[in-house]
Amino acid sequence: MTTLVSHQTKCVVLLSGGMDSTATYVERVNAGRTVLPIAFDYGQRHKREIHAARLVAEVLGAEPLKVVNLLSLQSVASGSSQLGDLPVPHGHYADETMKATVVPNRNMIMLALASAYAISEGAAEVAYAAHAGDHAIYPDCRPQFAEAMRTAMALCDYDSRAPLLVTPWINSSKADIASWGAAHKVPFYLTYSCYEGREKHCGLCGTCVERKEAFQLAGLVDFTEYEA
Amino acid sequence: MTTLVSHQTKCVVLLSGGMDSTATYVERVNAGRTVLPIAFDYGQRHKREIHAARLVAEVLGAEPLKVVNLLSLQSVASGSSQLGDLPVPHGHYADETMKATVVPNRNMIMLALASAYAISEGAAEVAYAAHAGDHAIYPDCRPQFAEAMRTAMALCDYDSRAPLLVTPWINSSKADIASWGAAHKVPFYLTYSCYEGREKHCGLCGTCVERKEAFQLAGLVDFTEYEA
Repeated sequence: MTTLVSHQTKCVVLLSGGMDSTATYVERVNAGRTVLPIAFDYGQRHKREIHAARLVAEVLGAEPLKVVNLLSLQSVASGSSQLGDLPVPHGHYADETMKATVVPNRNMIMLALASAYAISEGAAEVAYAAHAGDHAIYPDCRPQFAEAMRTAMALCDYDSRAPLLVTPWINSSKADIASWGAAHKVPFYLTYSCYEGREKHCGLCGTCVERKEAFQLAGLVDFTEYEA
Repeated sequence: MTTLVSHQTKCVVLLSGGMDSTATYVERVNAGRTVLPIAFDYGQRHKREIHAARLVAEVLGAEPLKVVNLLSLQSVASGSSQLGDLPVPHGHYADETMKATVVPNRNMIMLALASAYAISEGAAEVAYAAHAGDHAIYPDCRPQFAEAMRTAMALCDYDSRAPLLVTPWINSSKADIASWGAAHKVPFYLTYSCYEGREKHCGLCGTCVERKEAFQLAGLVDFTEYEA
């Protein structure tokens, strides 16, 4: 039954190179899974995150990062600051202005491709790092969406191949993730969050504000270098 | 209220260039929608179908065909005859051997990208041509899968932007589609079905067998040129 065991223990993790997905990687390893990390180059302004994801995969994993060319997303989706159409808004993540950062249907597209990868690799799970802090602005991070995707993914292929969607942080705040990560040696020092995509974190965009806040709320020292 | 009306009347149709998706196009036009046709180049052996889709879009539509480069599907999905990994099986569509033609999670990936396109273009609907003849072999053509995707798509963005999934043939046979199409002037003469992807239809692969059978069962003359 080697095949079955191997199938049951592989998990494709959507690894953006940020705090949450890096914590997801560690959480799945702690659950006994062999992680297959996957990242997407969709022409994001903050492409630097893929570099961070590669570093995280190198430090944490036996499996190299799979980077999927998704540049064609730009030809079907428009109107997002993260695809370079608009300036990146500053302020708090939950603000209405952050809607400019929504890339239409990004998570469904990534989960669909990650599921194809899982099926091809015989992985029983796909995990992504949606968390409670994202719910206000991003519809595709909400529990209802995750539940609907779990159902669709379970039906997308034969029973023996369809992957299970795992969302360890769906009801956690980013501060919860920071606390958990600090207690479980998540290499946050390798992660990158900023929407501006420059070498240092800008300190002003939604994800930077959220990152700072998470470390503060969790009572952790934040080693990130911010421009502001 | 021009914007609202325009939003309500656009529909993104997955147009493969085959009989079923071409009938879907006509069905949506008859329902009063402005169709935005979309096709995917995922390195399919039967790439000729994209040429057929372009012809169909030219003959039927005001909107040109959007062709999305999805060649990266090959880097995440493998093991399908349609990605060139294996020979195309001959025989009936419902045969167990046809499982070799399954491209892992293809429909979820296409629906996800089509949804992003719909959101960007202000289209209220996305339609795809899953039909009852596909249920036996293709899990992502079954009513349960379509229902789960309908729910996920309705939750993938803000209520005002999330598209409705429309599946006009989900309980129809291909012969039903052929009959409906003949009665509604669907240009079947432009369509292409063969999995081999040569200039003429091979006449032996699953889709060719199904195509022949559909015209016969519907009592229609089949103008397709088959090699065998």
